[in-house]
Amino acid sequence: MAGNDVKILGAWPSPYVMRPRIALNIKSVAYDFLEEQFGSKSELLLKSNPVYKKIPVLIHDGNPISESLIIVQYIDQVWNSGPSILPSDPYDRAIARFWATYIDDKWFPAMRGIAAAQGEDAKKAAMEPVVEGLVLLEDAFKNCSKGKKFFGGDKIGYLDIALGCFLGWIRVTEKLNNVKLLDEAKTPGLYKWAEEFCADSAVKDVMPATDKLAEAAKVIMAKIRAQASS
Amino acid sequence: MAGNDVKILGAWPSPYVMRPRIALNIKSVAYDFLEEQFGSKSELLLKSNPVYKKIPVLIHDGNPISESLIIVQYIDQVWNSGPSILPSDPYDRAIARFWATYIDDKWFPAMRGIAAAQGEDAKKAAMEPVVEGLVLLEDAFKNCSKGKKFFGGDKIGYLDIALGCFLGWIRVTEKLNNVKLLDEAKTPGLYKWAEEFCADSAVKDVMPATDKLAEAAKVIMAKIRAQASS
Repeated sequence: MAGNDVKILGAWPSPYVMRPRIALNIKSVAYDFLEEQFGSKSELLLKSNPVYKKIPVLIHDGNPISESLIIVQYIDQVWNSGPSILPSDPYDRAIARFWATYIDDKWFPAMRGIAAAQGEDAKKAAMEPVVEGLVLLEDAFKNCSKGKKFFGGDKIGYLDIALGCFLGWIRVTEKLNNVKLLDEAKTPGLYKWAEEFCADSAVKDVMPATDKLAEAAKVIMAKIRAQASS
Repeated sequence: MAGNDVKILGAWPSPYVMRPRIALNIKSVAYDFLEEQFGSKSELLLKSNPVYKKIPVLIHDGNPISESLIIVQYIDQVWNSGPSILPSDPYDRAIARFWATYIDDKWFPAMRGIAAAQGEDAKKAAMEPVVEGLVLLEDAFKNCSKGKKFFGGDKIGYLDIALGCFLGWIRVTEKLNNVKLLDEAKTPGLYKWAEEFCADSAVKDVMPATDKLAEAAKVIMAKIRAQASS
């Protein structure tokens, strides 16, 4: 029987940290949220994730686990105090894993390119693969949700968490760059899904308000620029 | 009940293709091996993996699944006609997933750097992160195997497959570059494990001989160079 000494090392603006927090909320597991400060790393973080030295880390009864999607799968296996997060059907599960990997390996790195792009033309070019990716994900949404609210069906599942954690940053990217990424005409399914996802009881307390996240983004970008030029 | 119309789209020199083949061998599942030719992509591959257009793809009863580690997890869930591939304990499972991800994201990309490095000093520098990675994996081996033969204990498991599929390429890299990567003194556990792994009945028929793989490597490298300069 799993104990319930559960800690998350994280930071509230991080989309990756949001993933295990949503998963723990789905399972109604209480946890201590230990905030790391941007630009420094606590002793506990360095000890808990010596390979990557990155958040999030879940510490369960003293055992540290790193990598957000691995943590989500761990949570799903350990606690049955809430609905399953991964699809039970093997094929559905493989497809959910495929798109979650696509999001982390291809789609989100492309989105970071928008913030880095200088000038109107560069920004337009940087947006292209992001929007193309969302069109692919719209198609995946149709196939996975089978007419229901979420990728996971009636309830939030693995792929909902994998993509949904980026919704705050999608909105901040739209706001700071004066662009439109999630478009009601181009990706109507995802557009509606995004609203449902953010309103869900497992999500709404950990999804930051766009204005607050935009302020944090400005501070983070300024620190990165200062470090790069020092 | 899962049907047994099982195809693998692949190529024998690919370490990633070896993963699902070993997993199917562990489960004693027969499959058709459809060889893709280097430098061209079949209609079936383009249709089955339209996002990445990459091997391996498993096609089970007409349903295609991509990404080698996702396929291995699928095989483990669908067939119980052999030992479990993933550890059953949630923490052991998370640790196996962590190191498998490390191998694909950090360690193997570093190993590709050795082949690309020009000159003795560059080769030496390129070897450093690879050997450092193997020292980390030696430590992981001690913790996971708990004195047994494999990462997975008495039998080959997920992490054995994730790392073991690269043993042919480790030996080819050693041979073609006249270097030593798996060292009996530095990584004694992995050194012995490599022998056990290659001799296992699920592995030995799909692990290519070093000389044959070295010849293929030369042909592949020549084609890549020709494409790059055309």
